[in-house]
Order: sequence, then C-alpha cells, then structure tokens
Amino acid sequence: MAVDEFELIRHYFSDLGNDKSGSVRLSVGDDCAIIAPPAGYNLVVSIDTMVEGTHFPKGTPGDKVASRLLGAALSDLAAMAAVPACFTLALTLPETDNVWLKAFSTRLSELASQYGVRLVGGDTTKGPLTLSIQVHGWTKPGKALLRSGAQPGDRIFVTGTLGDSRGGLETILKHITGEQVPYLQKRFFNPEPRLDTALLVSDFATSAIDISDGLLADLNHILVASRVGAMLHPAELPVSQSLYRWVGEKQAREWALGGGEDFELCFTVPLLSEPKLAWALREHDVAVTCIGQITETPGIVLAEEGKVWSVEPQGYNHFSEKGVNR
Amino acid sequence: MAVDEFELIRHYFSDLGNDKSGSVRLSVGDDCAIIAPPAGYNLVVSIDTMVEGTHFPKGTPGDKVASRLLGAALSDLAAMAAVPACFTLALTLPETDNVWLKAFSTRLSELASQYGVRLVGGDTTKGPLTLSIQVHGWTKPGKALLRSGAQPGDRIFVTGTLGDSRGGLETILKHITGEQVPYLQKRFFNPEPRLDTALLVSDFATSAIDISDGLLADLNHILVASRVGAMLHPAELPVSQSLYRWVGEKQAREWALGGGEDFELCFTVPLLSEPKLAWALREHDVAVTCIGQITETPGIVLAEEGKVWSVEPQGYNHFSEKGVNR
Repeated sequence: MAVDEFELIRHYFSDLGNDKSGSVRLSVGDDCAIIAPPAGYNLVVSIDTMVEGTHFPKGTPGDKVASRLLGAALSDLAAMAAVPACFTLALTLPETDNVWLKAFSTRLSELASQYGVRLVGGDTTKGPLTLSIQVHGWTKPGKALLRSGAQPGDRIFVTGTLGDSRGGLETILKHITGEQVPYLQKRFFNPEPRLDTALLVSDFATSAIDISDGLLADLNHILVASRVGAMLHPAELPVSQSLYRWVGEKQAREWALGGGEDFELCFTVPLLSEPKLAWALREHDVAVTCIGQITETPGIVLAEEGKVWSVEPQGYNHFSEKGVNR
Repeated sequence: MAVDEFELIRHYFSDLGNDKSGSVRLSVGDDCAIIAPPAGYNLVVSIDTMVEGTHFPKGTPGDKVASRLLGAALSDLAAMAAVPACFTLALTLPETDNVWLKAFSTRLSELASQYGVRLVGGDTTKGPLTLSIQVHGWTKPGKALLRSGAQPGDRIFVTGTLGDSRGGLETILKHITGEQVPYLQKRFFNPEPRLDTALLVSDFATSAIDISDGLLADLNHILVASRVGAMLHPAELPVSQSLYRWVGEKQAREWALGGGEDFELCFTVPLLSEPKLAWALREHDVAVTCIGQITETPGIVLAEEGKVWSVEPQGYNHFSEKGVNR
C-alpha cells in the first residue's frame, strides 16, 4: 500500500495522449502545465466529475470508467463546436489498485490519442473513488455554439440515437443479460463525443447543447437561455434497434426524452439554412434527425397525430433521488 | 434534500470573483466557459483536489475549506510566476448543507475578488466531500519559472516562515488550545499564495516551486529536475515566533524542513543576481530568506557549526500513512 504517490503518477500518467493541436509547451511534472494558445483563438474549458456509486456502479473496471469519463467530458467541447486540445485529471483513489489503474490509464491513453488530446496535468489523492477531468479546446471568437441563440422557427436536430445509455444503465443495475445488452452497455460506458459533427454544423446552427441530463432537460436549457419554447414530435425521436427490440416503443421513447447521459448533440438551425446543412452532412456521410422546431411560447409541447400536450422538462439530477444510488 | 442541482449551483456560484485580467468572455452557465488569451501570453493551468479526512478534518467549516482550497491552488500559479486569471470548481457533496455552502461560497467569493480571479465553470455532484479546483493564469513565453533551471552556485531562498501549517494541523488534530494556536491554525487554513513576490523574483530566479509536500521534498523536485544537489543551513530556516514559542527550536526546525503545506515559495537565484534581487525586494518591502545554495553533487546535505550530514527528502504523501487520517 505504501506506493510513493509521485511514482504512481509517473508510472501511469506521465506520457498519455497526443497533442494534435500542437499547443502544449510543458506537460505533467511541474507546478503547472504551459499551453500556447493558437493566435486568434479563444480557449474553452469544462470540468466534470464522476463519483463511484453516483455515476457508475461500484466495481466498474478501469477501462469502462476511462471511456465514460473522457467521452462525456469531450462532449462538452463538441457542444461548443470547439477543437479539443488537452486535459487535466484529478484522481481520488481509496487505494493503489494496480489492475484498475492499468486498465484505466491504458484505455484513457488509447482514447486520448484517438481524439488528439494530451494529459497535461493532474493530482492524485487518497479518498473515495472520484474523478474530475477538465478539458480544454479552441474556438474562433464568435464561433462557439452557445445555448442562447435559438430563434422561433428554427428546427431542432439531434445526433445519433437517444435513450440507449439509460437502457444500458438499467441492464447494469438489474444485472440483465441478452442479445441487446452489449450494445446498450457500450453506449453507457463509451459515449462518442460528436466533435466532427459539431464542427460541420457550427456554420449553420444557432444554438447547441450536449445531452447529459436528458433531451427534455437539456433542450430546456437552450429554451431558457434563448427565451423561446419548443414543439417536439415524439414519433421522430431517433431510437436504436437494440433499445426498441429490448423495451418496445413506449419505454424507448420515454428514455429518449428523459433518460440522460446520451452525450449526443441537440442543436437548432434556421429553416433557410437547412439545405446547406443537409448538403454538408451528406458530403461527410453524417446523419442527424429533425425532432421538432423552436416556438415563441416558452415551455415544451409534444405533438403527435393531431394531439398537442405540454411536458415538464425532467432530467437526471444528482441531488434528487434519480441517480445510480437507488 | 431534493434541492435542484441547477438551482443550487446558480444560487451559490453564479457570480463569484473578479476578472482582473479581463479575459473571461463567457462564465458559468453554458457547456464550457470561454476565455480570450491576452495576445502574446501562454496559458498555465494546475488542478488540485482536497478530500475531507485526507486534507482537512471532518467537520471543517466551509469558510476554512474555501481559503485553504483557493490559497493552495493559486500558490501553484505563483510557483510559475503567472498572473492569475480564473478558476473552475468541481464540488462533490454528500448532501445539500446550506450553512456549509453559504460559508464556503462567501469566503471563496471574498478571496477570488481579492486575488482578481473569477469562477468560470464547475460541476456539482453527490458523494463524499471532495473539492477539485483548476486555476488558470498567464505568463510570457519563456518567462515561467520551472523546476529545471537551478545551477550549481545558485543561492536558495524561501518566502515567509516554514512549519507553521504543520504546527496548525497538529493543534487541530490534538484539539490543542493556547496563545499561539489561532496564528498557526490560520497558517494551515489560510495559505497566502506569493503571487506578487513571484513576479518580483521572476526576472532573477532560475527555478521555483511552492512548498506543498515539505521543504526537503519540494526542493528535491527542483534538484532532480535540474540535476543538481543542495546544501542547506538549518540555522537559517525562517520560523515564526508563534511556532518557536509553542514547540521550541528543534521541533520547529523539523516541521520547517518536512512539515508540508506551507505554500511558501522556494526559488534559486544566481549569486551575481542577488544585489538586483535584494534591491527589487527592498523597493517593494518584501522579505525572503537565503537558506543555502545549489551544489553539483546530487542530494541534500545540511550544514551547521562545521558539521555536514546528508538527509532523505521526505514529504507529505497521500499514499503513505502520513495524512490527516492517522
């Protein structure tokens, strides 16, 4: 147990990831990291924490924690249409578990290289398993996608499929096995930040957010920041075959609307820009789904088969009773 | 208990601190914060974690945790001679304790305004009390003070007095009262980052570090990075009257050498630059203490009354048995 802290950090985290943006001047090993901002770019930063028992079940292997942590964090950069640069990691561990640490750092290293980000600093402390990650990226001034730019008439789009992560969590908590389970659990543990898609849509989108609390809750953040409302078409919600086959249409839709932790993007595009968006997406073989439009009236309404009803924006909330700790 | 996470964050942390460097473009409330780097400056960043029971005793009031957290974090910017800009905060809380949160955020706000840094982002999660803070600052390229520049013959300086924080911790853990206790506990809970002194010495210093693990351990980081050794004069170690009166010379010296968490600066200056350093410090009424010099031979030796003996660099290490959890 009395492994030296500095040796531990050095061993697993000294040379991790890949500085694709070429901005790192000094990495792990001094009091601070030094980063040279590319001329004419703004820095964007986001910090996220995952706690064992709140965000992932006790006993989750290190590789799964790593992919969930980095994927979710980079998703915040995607939501701003930023180019990722580097990250820092604050790791609180109850003990020196070499198997866990090796699995964690190996997977973190693979993904950091894949996304072109380098680990530039960190802190390792003793305590209940908690991981805080801060990601850093670059955007041109005025080009970041904010939550506050949606306009009435804009169409609302989402990337990928929704609700899979919530389904995956359910299979973990209830120890469910079956044909669809591996895909759904992969969607929970291995979120794919939509960095490239974000850059593609950033010329056309008026607002964006990544779906971490659930579609309704996160869309509502856009609506409140933009002082508008939304009408959604539940029948248009993109749901995976795996989720549909496992729980059927009704439950799949519910999780798509409120499940949380999909880490897909939700963004708005003016009607007039849709053809250009479609062209850009087709050229890069990227599919997104239109699920509704922005309205003047605050709040969210669902519309289906001629019926319209309002819904409360609900979301995953760590201080309510909806977490993993149920 | 079912306080909404977003409301909680908004209430206590929405408008905190003071953006003295004028670089914050978008603060708390979107997926990322946006910061405009001043032209021609590099970004320096450092992340630090404090865990209840490891870094401060259970039941420590929020205001004391706030001053310890921000002071220690900004000390890393001082160690690089950086100008502070802003910070992010990842707060893991077991429950919504409004008294604690109010005390914490009020003190954090006071100090953030005092040091000219703004809170630009954060995450609030449920779990055992853990706080991760990332600080951001600016330096001119090539002007950051690294650990790696010390040269044989350089003189070794420290700011302030050493060992007080270790003394303060002892009085807390053993519930000791007395005349010297308030000062020592203040030194533990309210570290003062030496930001101004760092900027003053940065024109002359060849290396610097802040003392978090203890003088010997942190000086050793400089020695290893610079591939040199050091000779220290224990009789020259700056010790406060409070510590001296409470524990006497021998214990005070021991804590000054190995106690940790002083958050004073240790830096090296070439002999030829000493007059200019002295002039600059006198002009700004800042006192520092020369405690020894850099040598060619690796390792640390102590020299006193004609005797010379070598010492092991020991330090505070969260994975050994030396933490608060004894």
